[in-house]
Amino acid sequence: MAGNSFGQAFRITTAGESHGPGNVVIIDGVPPGIPISVEDLLVDLNRRKPGQSKIVTQRKEADHPEILAGVFEGITTGTSLAILIRNEDQRSKDYSDIKDKYRPGHADYTYDAKYGFRDYRGGGRSSARETNVRVAAGVVAKKILEAAFGGRVVGYVTQVGDFRAQIKDPATVTIDQVEKMSDGELNPVRCPDHKVASQMIELIDQVRKEGDSIGGVAEVVATNVPAGLGEPVFDKLKADIAKALFSIPAVLGVEYGSGFACATMRGSENNDHFIAGENSNVDTPVITTDSNRHGGSLGGISTGQPLVFRAAVKPTSSLLIEQPTVTKQGEPTSIKTKGRHDPCLLPRFVPIAEAMIAITLADHWLRWRAQCAAAPDRTQDN
Amino acid sequence: MAGNSFGQAFRITTAGESHGPGNVVIIDGVPPGIPISVEDLLVDLNRRKPGQSKIVTQRKEADHPEILAGVFEGITTGTSLAILIRNEDQRSKDYSDIKDKYRPGHADYTYDAKYGFRDYRGGGRSSARETNVRVAAGVVAKKILEAAFGGRVVGYVTQVGDFRAQIKDPATVTIDQVEKMSDGELNPVRCPDHKVASQMIELIDQVRKEGDSIGGVAEVVATNVPAGLGEPVFDKLKADIAKALFSIPAVLGVEYGSGFACATMRGSENNDHFIAGENSNVDTPVITTDSNRHGGSLGGISTGQPLVFRAAVKPTSSLLIEQPTVTKQGEPTSIKTKGRHDPCLLPRFVPIAEAMIAITLADHWLRWRAQCAAAPDRTQDN
Amino acid sequence: MAGNSFGQAFRITTAGESHGPGNVVIIDGVPPGIPISVEDLLVDLNRRKPGQSKIVTQRKEADHPEILAGVFEGITTGTSLAILIRNEDQRSKDYSDIKDKYRPGHADYTYDAKYGFRDYRGGGRSSARETNVRVAAGVVAKKILEAAFGGRVVGYVTQVGDFRAQIKDPATVTIDQVEKMSDGELNPVRCPDHKVASQMIELIDQVRKEGDSIGGVAEVVATNVPAGLGEPVFDKLKADIAKALFSIPAVLGVEYGSGFACATMRGSENNDHFIAGENSNVDTPVITTDSNRHGGSLGGISTGQPLVFRAAVKPTSSLLIEQPTVTKQGEPTSIKTKGRHDPCLLPRFVPIAEAMIAITLADHWLRWRAQCAAAPDRTQDN
Amino acid sequence: MAGNSFGQAFRITTAGESHGPGNVVIIDGVPPGIPISVEDLLVDLNRRKPGQSKIVTQRKEADHPEILAGVFEGITTGTSLAILIRNEDQRSKDYSDIKDKYRPGHADYTYDAKYGFRDYRGGGRSSARETNVRVAAGVVAKKILEAAFGGRVVGYVTQVGDFRAQIKDPATVTIDQVEKMSDGELNPVRCPDHKVASQMIELIDQVRKEGDSIGGVAEVVATNVPAGLGEPVFDKLKADIAKALFSIPAVLGVEYGSGFACATMRGSENNDHFIAGENSNVDTPVITTDSNRHGGSLGGISTGQPLVFRAAVKPTSSLLIEQPTVTKQGEPTSIKTKGRHDPCLLPRFVPIAEAMIAITLADHWLRWRAQCAAAPDRTQDN
Repeated sequence: MAGNSFGQAFRITTAGESHGPGNVVIIDGVPPGIPISVEDLLVDLNRRKPGQSKIVTQRKEADHPEILAGVFEGITTGTSLAILIRNEDQRSKDYSDIKDKYRPGHADYTYDAKYGFRDYRGGGRSSARETNVRVAAGVVAKKILEAAFGGRVVGYVTQVGDFRAQIKDPATVTIDQVEKMSDGELNPVRCPDHKVASQMIELIDQVRKEGDSIGGVAEVVATNVPAGLGEPVFDKLKADIAKALFSIPAVLGVEYGSGFACATMRGSENNDHFIAGENSNVDTPVITTDSNRHGGSLGGISTGQPLVFRAAVKPTSSLLIEQPTVTKQGEPTSIKTKGRHDPCLLPRFVPIAEAMIAITLADHWLRWRAQCAAAPDRTQDN
Repeated sequence: MAGNSFGQAFRITTAGESHGPGNVVIIDGVPPGIPISVEDLLVDLNRRKPGQSKIVTQRKEADHPEILAGVFEGITTGTSLAILIRNEDQRSKDYSDIKDKYRPGHADYTYDAKYGFRDYRGGGRSSARETNVRVAAGVVAKKILEAAFGGRVVGYVTQVGDFRAQIKDPATVTIDQVEKMSDGELNPVRCPDHKVASQMIELIDQVRKEGDSIGGVAEVVATNVPAGLGEPVFDKLKADIAKALFSIPAVLGVEYGSGFACATMRGSENNDHFIAGENSNVDTPVITTDSNRHGGSLGGISTGQPLVFRAAVKPTSSLLIEQPTVTKQGEPTSIKTKGRHDPCLLPRFVPIAEAMIAITLADHWLRWRAQCAAAPDRTQDN
Repeated sequence: MAGNSFGQAFRITTAGESHGPGNVVIIDGVPPGIPISVEDLLVDLNRRKPGQSKIVTQRKEADHPEILAGVFEGITTGTSLAILIRNEDQRSKDYSDIKDKYRPGHADYTYDAKYGFRDYRGGGRSSARETNVRVAAGVVAKKILEAAFGGRVVGYVTQVGDFRAQIKDPATVTIDQVEKMSDGELNPVRCPDHKVASQMIELIDQVRKEGDSIGGVAEVVATNVPAGLGEPVFDKLKADIAKALFSIPAVLGVEYGSGFACATMRGSENNDHFIAGENSNVDTPVITTDSNRHGGSLGGISTGQPLVFRAAVKPTSSLLIEQPTVTKQGEPTSIKTKGRHDPCLLPRFVPIAEAMIAITLADHWLRWRAQCAAAPDRTQDN
Repeated sequence: MAGNSFGQAFRITTAGESHGPGNVVIIDGVPPGIPISVEDLLVDLNRRKPGQSKIVTQRKEADHPEILAGVFEGITTGTSLAILIRNEDQRSKDYSDIKDKYRPGHADYTYDAKYGFRDYRGGGRSSARETNVRVAAGVVAKKILEAAFGGRVVGYVTQVGDFRAQIKDPATVTIDQVEKMSDGELNPVRCPDHKVASQMIELIDQVRKEGDSIGGVAEVVATNVPAGLGEPVFDKLKADIAKALFSIPAVLGVEYGSGFACATMRGSENNDHFIAGENSNVDTPVITTDSNRHGGSLGGISTGQPLVFRAAVKPTSSLLIEQPTVTKQGEPTSIKTKGRHDPCLLPRFVPIAEAMIAITLADHWLRWRAQCAAAPDRTQDN
């Protein structure tokens, strides 16, 4: 009953620490016949990896995946798929001084409290390092969504500090706008509002120079998701996506659709109205809504509208500034992180959030197939 | 793998519709030897039930539970516990006209899309009616937390529309402040800031008269929770609590600790600092923090500080105002709810949110016992 | 993680004791659109219920089911389905004297050891009474198999004491041969070899008169099951069916195909040979085998041949003969069961075993759909 | 919902094919603080590996494990533990000719039927090669049982063809009697009745020379297991152990205690009688039985008596004798295995069966801890 698995029909199980031999993921439930290559995995792994730009950590991690099982002659076999990413650049000395000190905002203390001791090398299992195999699994999930219904999952940064992006229509944001600036240059902060992106980059760079860090918000949008995904009453799509996002280190809040803003709204303002879609006809009307304050989910089930989720990510806990804390023995001391850390987690958070949402959708797609595809005379089956 | 179960070690499975014979919950994993009576269940069921005050729905539902199994001579046997709550007051005629219309903000359309058809009587399975057995299960969970470590879960309303409560210390809010006004009268809105409570009540009453509804925010606090609960890396305590809250109808957002406010904060502002607790001694220092922006969870594991979560609840979708929509066939029409609904969901949301968090904590407590209690020479075991 | 649930995609969760208010099952994952009525449930419940003939217990239990949820206008909704069977005829006095004595062969002692105490009324949760809701769930499962691929599950008794039935082809045994004698009279022992059936009945009646009991073997056959069900490497079809059968009280052994007889066989004797089926053609050859020593499963996956499983059921532990035992306090004493019990469990075991195998097959059918039905360009999908 | 995980509280998830890069297991739920080394793993891996003697396959597989995660400074951390065993000696040419032929008794056909195609290199995922990581996980499980209650799991061969071992008391069989002959020489067949062992070896050698194979039976005994393990009503200890054994390739039958022999027994013969144990006293009597026909389990819960299970293992399907079969296209052909295979699977089956039973017991121990250890005033908790 430990918690290193996620999903049911499409299920990932992971192991690995920041400074052990490596991280591994076993994906169970992958449909057979899907082409997967190391190159496919590298696309998102490279978006997550350190050292991409001056505003992220300068650690060197190649994050080169090895497919250990589940793929034969380039396509998935339907049996469990395993991916290993070995660790490199294990500068244990960077972390030796935290062996007996509890870093503020980190899990050092809670791991000691839970397990009686901990792998003190850079956070061990609590390090975000483990998310690299989640991203690899996310690539497999994205391919399933693409093959099944042309599903697409795109994430981007909407807020860093007080800088907020203006996004007219989340569903139309392209991966290109996220990864590249208007001039074609790299968009290191992954904010598709390029004017605001420049301001965010400036802020992050300034914070970095001060040895401090800054928080922010990312938004992830899933499009072409058919109506019907999500399992009442506990595994609502919104519930499983929220869990997926909260399972990522540093996430302090999740909302979808009108989110927390609904607190000040009237029902007459917040309700979206159902309308008949353009390509409707008498036999099979396409039901849609004239707005998307419901964020693509009603009753915990997808409506066919874009799924729009946001996550609040706290400022990096590791600082180059001296911070007061205590030792394992409770003696007052102070700590100043020597390791190389991201001054803002948001840019590298984007591919991780995309992966977790893709994994959740793949899981729910397969779960929906199990129950409803087996129903007598159903049209969804075709 | 439909989704009518929640939890692993302490696992609830439910069934029931708003206008069927009733709702039932089977709770598996209940420790043996815990006293449970129908009276115990009624305490929270009465806090949730309709008709408590003028600002909630006037439907009459006695919500009287029957314990079908798992309790012998007044105490739990350790085998599966089942509770049945029969439905009364089934005014099906109230709902007959929605058979072919899709109510804005409701799950009518998504259930049709998912299952091919639906129980159209008042939402069927998608109605919040099913939460009554969650509340009953929550009572069992609360008793486990109380017996295990004096755990306490208290929820209250912090925002309705633009009215926001001032809560100095969430951990000190008492159930009495939530349920009663300063003058000892019933506190129908469950806001412990009684000045603001009166304003909220006025607003809700006004909204009700207009046939409209209003959203809000509730906060739930769990105290005396020991450090160590939460399972890396996916079943983090924050992740499972967030899922628990998002599994409740109408929840559009969840945050804990500094939440979405962290987006504008520096790491140096947001980090809480570890200190030695008062009753510390050299052998067994008590590690705590000098503030609680981390909301009681670090690395997804409880720190021993109060767990503080907030949920945003949308305004009720059912309105007495005419709203445009379409029929199952896609033809434009309009709908005006005749049923009796809550103008604001928050007051009755509180006991449901408490129940889901208590259930999540009971589950994680048992899960922690399974793994760590079995470890050699551990002190937590005693 | 107590154990009151079985299955994953088609999942049953049960609660109830022999002398509590009743037994309840929640079935999650039922495909929508399947007709289910109380009459459907009664067919198999009546085959299981006591008092059917002189060779089974004479207890009176109507076993009348109430569908609490998941069925609307006579068909399944796709949401969780709940069935309640209330207990009647609770002769607690029959059991009062076993409060402090441990009945040989029963779970009185192990329940005390596990839970610290027990519901001593007739075995409580350990009584086979709980199997009535399994049988009800089995009816739902049988309907899914029938609708999905014309699946059929038939069980019968092959051995009681030294009397062994001669079954030429398990796949051709009809429910009629099991339930009726050649002369159309009731076949109380459910052995399709009617000559041997008469001998079995005589033996059971004699054993009953002696206040003793006798063991036996039942065989269950599932036909029309398509090739492809079963999940490597742990949830092999043979593994889940074996677990399903061993989860039934009194089962001491399970085998399929050549079973234990394989120990003395050569590979050249035991291997079945693949051949092309009659209705084969070049494009889609039908692969089958010229014999069925493999019992319909290879590599843990169904081959399309009939699934043939056998279970050994021990003689009833409750005897009218005085047996030595000890009290809870360890003091020597003796016990003589006053309750009314089956002198041989096999006749009533048949519908229970059919139900558990049908449930396992329904679960694997849905699981197969989840993963393989979602695969690109697969023919199995049609 | 694929099936590559086993267990709940102590959960193993595996991936790997016979001729892919290797096999990997992730073990979740391992209690922290348990010493584990590669040397520990090798003890049982060497008992399973090929080439140990002339009566097993002569394939060369070093089966050298690498611990990828979950162990820090030689002890388990409590986070997920991963073990990788790379494949060597991948003689794909041995298998090239089976690409389009269906080997009798193998899963070639069923994998094609289920997944649409298969990894045809030596069985891929269906090969028993995957059991090497099960054995590695079994070592971790054995250490948990040893640490928790001095638990011990010993397996041995009781039958090969018509040669049956005489085992007076299963609980007293030592690993030494299993691994060594009376003269201290290697006991390649792992039968503790050394006289019969020699006959078995002779038979296997003769069968091998004929290019044929032979079946058999193995018995596994678990001692010092406390009363109380096993979860009613579906996850009975007997049910989960049976599933564990049936999940191993080639197992056609499982029984425990009196097993299939119970079919001919009277209740008065089969019932074991409860007695007070020697070291009993008035306050805490030790309840035991004067015989063990119940095989250590009553009501699906361990009694404290030795758990005694037997598994029937079919003769190896791969033969050096020409066997008739068909191609994927249904054309008649014949096949003669060129690979090197075990003429009898039993000797190498023993450590695999021990591992699966140890894993099941570790899982149930942790599950018992979760629920019952959390109960108020329980003595089991200490």
